[in-house]
Amino acid sequence: MKAYIINIGDEILIGQIVNTNAAWMAKELNALGIAIHRIETVSDDKQDMIQALEAAFQVADLVLLTGGLGPTKDDVTKHALTAFFDTELAFHEPTYKRIEQFFALKKIPVTDLHRLQCFLPVDCTLITNPKGSAPAMWFEKEGKIAVAMPGVPYEMKALMTREILPKLAAKAIQGEILHHSIETAGVGETTVAKHIEHIEENLPSNFKLAFLPHLGSVTLRLSATGEDKVALQKAMDEQVGLIKAAIPDFIYGDNGEKLEEAIGKLLKSKGKTMGTAESCTGGFISHKITSIAGSSEYYKGSIIAYSNGIKIKMLDVQADTLEQYGAVSEQTVREMVEGTLETLGVDYAIAVSGIAGPGGERPGKPVGTIWTAFGEKGNIRTRKLQLGRDRLKNIQLTTTYSLNELRKFLLAG
Amino acid sequence: MKAYIINIGDEILIGQIVNTNAAWMAKELNALGIAIHRIETVSDDKQDMIQALEAAFQVADLVLLTGGLGPTKDDVTKHALTAFFDTELAFHEPTYKRIEQFFALKKIPVTDLHRLQCFLPVDCTLITNPKGSAPAMWFEKEGKIAVAMPGVPYEMKALMTREILPKLAAKAIQGEILHHSIETAGVGETTVAKHIEHIEENLPSNFKLAFLPHLGSVTLRLSATGEDKVALQKAMDEQVGLIKAAIPDFIYGDNGEKLEEAIGKLLKSKGKTMGTAESCTGGFISHKITSIAGSSEYYKGSIIAYSNGIKIKMLDVQADTLEQYGAVSEQTVREMVEGTLETLGVDYAIAVSGIAGPGGERPGKPVGTIWTAFGEKGNIRTRKLQLGRDRLKNIQLTTTYSLNELRKFLLAG
Repeated sequence: MKAYIINIGDEILIGQIVNTNAAWMAKELNALGIAIHRIETVSDDKQDMIQALEAAFQVADLVLLTGGLGPTKDDVTKHALTAFFDTELAFHEPTYKRIEQFFALKKIPVTDLHRLQCFLPVDCTLITNPKGSAPAMWFEKEGKIAVAMPGVPYEMKALMTREILPKLAAKAIQGEILHHSIETAGVGETTVAKHIEHIEENLPSNFKLAFLPHLGSVTLRLSATGEDKVALQKAMDEQVGLIKAAIPDFIYGDNGEKLEEAIGKLLKSKGKTMGTAESCTGGFISHKITSIAGSSEYYKGSIIAYSNGIKIKMLDVQADTLEQYGAVSEQTVREMVEGTLETLGVDYAIAVSGIAGPGGERPGKPVGTIWTAFGEKGNIRTRKLQLGRDRLKNIQLTTTYSLNELRKFLLAG
Repeated sequence: MKAYIINIGDEILIGQIVNTNAAWMAKELNALGIAIHRIETVSDDKQDMIQALEAAFQVADLVLLTGGLGPTKDDVTKHALTAFFDTELAFHEPTYKRIEQFFALKKIPVTDLHRLQCFLPVDCTLITNPKGSAPAMWFEKEGKIAVAMPGVPYEMKALMTREILPKLAAKAIQGEILHHSIETAGVGETTVAKHIEHIEENLPSNFKLAFLPHLGSVTLRLSATGEDKVALQKAMDEQVGLIKAAIPDFIYGDNGEKLEEAIGKLLKSKGKTMGTAESCTGGFISHKITSIAGSSEYYKGSIIAYSNGIKIKMLDVQADTLEQYGAVSEQTVREMVEGTLETLGVDYAIAVSGIAGPGGERPGKPVGTIWTAFGEKGNIRTRKLQLGRDRLKNIQLTTTYSLNELRKFLLAG
């Protein structure tokens, strides 16, 4: 079964709202083994919609539409579908009764617009909307299925989850689709690709490998299609195994796991705690760690020491050290980690000090020079990063690299 | 000028990522008066892409593409465009030199994949990518324009802002076009709209007003087109003046200025310093402030007190206070501000403590209950926020609201 998703609405075309419906629908359909051939956003225009439907059904046997089902004049989806499937509109009493009850509860008067909304296509199955007034419409003709839903995310999701996905599952084709993502950090797309080139070249023909680069990390996504789910899962496990064996040091998780989650798991399993001391990252490492629900279990806090005075006062960095080596130095970040372990009373710590830029260059220390230290009492490692001139990128990269260094340290320890 | 946006990538079609590029691009193109006829997501497949290009140019004279420009095997955009525009690939020395320098800085070896990436279409204008290795490609043939950019949002945005939008503006607009953005914070889109309804209704016919809502803030963008630049600027100043007079309390800046920049300006003009103490925001306030270049001039640091122990030890919060009122209380954030002013030796401070969620509910304190305090020695204000259940959203909203409260405090003082 090949599917099209058509999202209707000028508000998307003018960039007023981000189309989050499509991603949610695509994920759900993929889980049923229904491949999305294309996602389109079309304006609230009857002719455009009809043209989009014609083009879609050239390749797809299923078209899911969202939007344009409201009571206002710019909601023309039902007119387009009525024309496309060559049927007509008729007043639908049960829907009108539902709307009356629905609005009675909300103490909102029912208007002519709502009456107009109850003129619905006769040649389709109407699916009651548990969260709103506009029912979904299921058209089926000569093996082609079109399902129109409201664009309001929670209405669409309720209709999909309770009614439409189960109906589609029943029809869902013989054939399975599997995805597995492998999360890597610390190296770029090309480095990862280089290391698994031989695996990529020998992938079974029913497999696809995609590289999704982020700042300081890369997601590898394997997709496979086949008949037998069990055999497919076995083949997937094999390929995942091959990749994991080829680049063990780069990999920190699976299927969308975050670096800060991986660290959280490691710390919880050890029953240990951590803290941070940040200069140039200015709290971004702390933000990443605390963006994970439940992080207070293992994360105690951070000292954002943006001035030397605070490095000395709160982190017990020696004035001599700052004097002799500067704030951006291996010696300073080492003392910052020691200070964090001591002051916050944590088991592990990360410290960072660098020149995020665009200014702040010092002799022998160009913009993008960053020192990070990480470890535990009596066992502190350091690493120097030489990054670019983009302040925010430097902050984000330093955060990812530092978290990844601590993760590797926790694994080794 | 009619445009198509084509986003390339299976990761969108399987719902792994939400397509945020399209909304950003659509917003920017609309500002130039370029209407988006359709937004499509197409798979990493050469034939699909060619078919999509053919269909797009049936109605559009401009097609903007993102994605599929990386060095890996699943990046086939340049091959599709080369075929569509009937040209060929050739090794592009300057791009290779750039990549060599680019990676030399990062001490990353240049691989064959990078060489492969430098085989680029001969019949197009290459636009250097300031944030990455893959250049943008500008094709122009028989009045049809296709521009291909990387899919990585910050690379796409940098290329659009610096190179592509100006080039398109020159082509799209006969006459002059002016934009002015007014940045507001602290109230929602509908509240802002309500307050300037009368101005919006009486806008000159050559003016357009757009509301761009963000988390906790709203950008008002005025766009005007006309023949005479001077007259246009005069009319623009008038409308901006009207709006600023109508909602002075909501406005903190112009043309993309950030709340944290506005605070920086105020502190610099006063020659004063500030610090923060964060619990539930976990460093995000500090991150925002330090994301501004030169912030070390007025920002000294922060204490991320994620545990009560650290609130007591580093911020001198009384154990009794935590005992009696809890960590999420007006009394606690007040003492956190006092502690910050004292410990960090700063003139102004913000403190935050709350339940970011999704867990952590306490009797009388549902998820989303957040207290923020701000001020200076002897003059500390507090505010309670009652937000939702989304952890990250709560962190971001609390940050925006707290920064805005301090901004208003600095203005008043």
